[in-house]
Amino acid sequence: MLEELKQQVYEANMELPRRGLITYTWGNVSGIDRASGYFVIKPSGVDYDKLSAKDMVVMDLNGNKIEGDYKPSSDTPTHIELYKKYEGIGGIVHTHSPEAVGWAQAGRDIPLYGTTHADYFFGPIPCARNLTKEEIEEAYEKNTGTVIIETFEGRKIDPLFTPAVLCKNHGPFTWGKDAAEAVHNAVVLEEVARMARFTESIKPDVETAPDSIRDKHFYRKHGANAYYGQG
Amino acid sequence: MLEELKQQVYEANMELPRRGLITYTWGNVSGIDRASGYFVIKPSGVDYDKLSAKDMVVMDLNGNKIEGDYKPSSDTPTHIELYKKYEGIGGIVHTHSPEAVGWAQAGRDIPLYGTTHADYFFGPIPCARNLTKEEIEEAYEKNTGTVIIETFEGRKIDPLFTPAVLCKNHGPFTWGKDAAEAVHNAVVLEEVARMARFTESIKPDVETAPDSIRDKHFYRKHGANAYYGQG
Amino acid sequence: MLEELKQQVYEANMELPRRGLITYTWGNVSGIDRASGYFVIKPSGVDYDKLSAKDMVVMDLNGNKIEGDYKPSSDTPTHIELYKKYEGIGGIVHTHSPEAVGWAQAGRDIPLYGTTHADYFFGPIPCARNLTKEEIEEAYEKNTGTVIIETFEGRKIDPLFTPAVLCKNHGPFTWGKDAAEAVHNAVVLEEVARMARFTESIKPDVETAPDSIRDKHFYRKHGANAYYGQG
Amino acid sequence: MLEELKQQVYEANMELPRRGLITYTWGNVSGIDRASGYFVIKPSGVDYDKLSAKDMVVMDLNGNKIEGDYKPSSDTPTHIELYKKYEGIGGIVHTHSPEAVGWAQAGRDIPLYGTTHADYFFGPIPCARNLTKEEIEEAYEKNTGTVIIETFEGRKIDPLFTPAVLCKNHGPFTWGKDAAEAVHNAVVLEEVARMARFTESIKPDVETAPDSIRDKHFYRKHGANAYYGQG
Repeated sequence: MLEELKQQVYEANMELPRRGLITYTWGNVSGIDRASGYFVIKPSGVDYDKLSAKDMVVMDLNGNKIEGDYKPSSDTPTHIELYKKYEGIGGIVHTHSPEAVGWAQAGRDIPLYGTTHADYFFGPIPCARNLTKEEIEEAYEKNTGTVIIETFEGRKIDPLFTPAVLCKNHGPFTWGKDAAEAVHNAVVLEEVARMARFTESIKPDVETAPDSIRDKHFYRKHGANAYYGQG
Repeated sequence: MLEELKQQVYEANMELPRRGLITYTWGNVSGIDRASGYFVIKPSGVDYDKLSAKDMVVMDLNGNKIEGDYKPSSDTPTHIELYKKYEGIGGIVHTHSPEAVGWAQAGRDIPLYGTTHADYFFGPIPCARNLTKEEIEEAYEKNTGTVIIETFEGRKIDPLFTPAVLCKNHGPFTWGKDAAEAVHNAVVLEEVARMARFTESIKPDVETAPDSIRDKHFYRKHGANAYYGQG
Repeated sequence: MLEELKQQVYEANMELPRRGLITYTWGNVSGIDRASGYFVIKPSGVDYDKLSAKDMVVMDLNGNKIEGDYKPSSDTPTHIELYKKYEGIGGIVHTHSPEAVGWAQAGRDIPLYGTTHADYFFGPIPCARNLTKEEIEEAYEKNTGTVIIETFEGRKIDPLFTPAVLCKNHGPFTWGKDAAEAVHNAVVLEEVARMARFTESIKPDVETAPDSIRDKHFYRKHGANAYYGQG
Repeated sequence: MLEELKQQVYEANMELPRRGLITYTWGNVSGIDRASGYFVIKPSGVDYDKLSAKDMVVMDLNGNKIEGDYKPSSDTPTHIELYKKYEGIGGIVHTHSPEAVGWAQAGRDIPLYGTTHADYFFGPIPCARNLTKEEIEEAYEKNTGTVIIETFEGRKIDPLFTPAVLCKNHGPFTWGKDAAEAVHNAVVLEEVARMARFTESIKPDVETAPDSIRDKHFYRKHGANAYYGQG
């Protein structure tokens, strides 16, 4: 069942430790098959070096396990909220990569300081608010998704133009058209977070990049007039 | 004698350089067999690449060597104090990992800024006070243990809920139910220390995470109602 | 056609990820054959691990593709401006290496703080101004070259004495007598940028190095009286 | 001639890139045979991966080349000054390792903040003054040695108790009883410099460690009453 998707999600998960974004089991990747409405996600707390494609768990968007020997990632309800709200999302990643966590723990958006950022994200990476005590107690992982959606809707950010968020005092989620692109965006986010930290250390009162730079670089790689790459 | 424990302690020691926590011989791991009251510890100042399981030294809790060709780690009396005071501790690690040392040299607790921290430590990582000149001269390594205990008792911190400490102007000790878990906690501590440094660099006046976040993440992984992982 | 140059440029490109300067496809190297006026450059957006020497694209200085299956790097017009203006340049590199990007995003020159810098660059690494909205819309990549030249001409910096520039809110370009030397200078620039960040962190009001240090180290390695190395 | 010493010095040189202290050819190690008064040093500007033991250059303390196909390191006169002044020094290292360079460029001593430092260096790592324009022009590398000696003599620091120095706007020299120990001290210095940077970042107004900590840790590893290790 969904063997190809399982293989893709497995490989996307394994890319995280290879790229240095993961310590122990601190992360998860999922990918969705929109035709069936099922998605595939990493099992909870299983070591990366013991993982194989057949260990991936198949879930539906109501949170029912469709197939799999393991319990799915504890963050599964967050993935569900995002998949349900945003049809354009095909893969989701959560990590505790240290540079992005630094900004999440600081409770700050990552400002758009340059072209590396603008090549992938059309504006600052938003930092979502903390969940209230009630939201945590009621349904922590589901409400994490709710608050991410509240952030994008409330600030009128298109999640396909800015495929990343920081959850306050927690860490980043990224997404993309599939699991591989979501991991790609997680790697870029970590680099962008590092560069922004360096930038503020070098010039504490630095200004963000002009909109004209942002527009040029984003649209050089995305949309109808893109001319970067061989596509 | 205690061959299985020696193998475990040997492997836990070797995990330290593999995880990048150790330069030269700057660290040691021990593990205890509560039935016999004997514990096994790394020999002092021996290169990691020359170490084997049979080089591990067997000690009793009075500081007598029971078996072994080498002198035990010079920090052995610190391990003894902790094993004697806290029955729940099965393994202990000491390193000079640079991020944790940064906080220890600064003489500051590591504040709880986020979920990576709360997944493992139920509150700030305490920084123990300096030993006095008299305590150093009388019995440095033993009194290092005494001052760690004073810190946990005086501040009413449960060492099984917060399995790490910073010794001022020195570095970290961590522990766990066995040697492997103690090493796991040493790795996590280094990551948490790094993230906290990044966080304060990004937002110097940052506030700590709400208690509700701390409680949720700690109890999601620990205790009767834990639901993270496959257990 | 230009097989030897293609091989050199290919190897220079592959050196970038090996030296840790590149994430994904964020960089490009070119090298020129002054006899024919043709230069060879990496194709746009192709993964480094799929690249081979035969994929290199041959261009002329009017921006015409002379040979190659792929589209050239989107930064090709920047390379052309530099090759046309400065006869002494034989190879050019662009990266998004994080330490250099930190300074570029901060919009600051890298001050000459020591001998590592002075061994390669005879003065601060200049940070070129942002392009205007009009310059971006008219011809972004070409005008990036124009503004680099404006910086060196306006500030009377000899690009062969200071073979590197930071483009504001973007990142570094470096160059050299050939592609390999341009990559060498990119690696040095990243180290120098890191050291300068450390220096200002350690002493925020630090002064730059004396001219006598700069002169000694630069001329120890460059020019008629050089005595470093075996040459 | 001095084949064993050449092999030792060769291996000590190769340890520098393996430990991550060296970019390109930015460093050199020497070792002396006190019986003959000859010392062995790395050739100038030769790539580490092309180096072999037979390429090491044999010199006397008057700066005459005794044996070797290559020119010796351009820093050879600095090594000579140190060997001539301090009989106890058997090996010398120079690097541009970035953390130590950060302090050298800042022109600051590295304060003694903790036990990692005190295990190897009995007090702050001194930063020597800049050479004057006249000293640079007269004999740069020789006077680098003179100013190092002036620093230790003027501040009454025993170079065998504190086997490292920072040359202002330049970088570190370390030494030891032989080439291997000098490299060991170069690795430790880089770690200590990193930890001190972290410490000041975490607590800008931090105080240095008490003398009692310094004494305990230094004498635990050095001198007649040392008890660290198996010796």
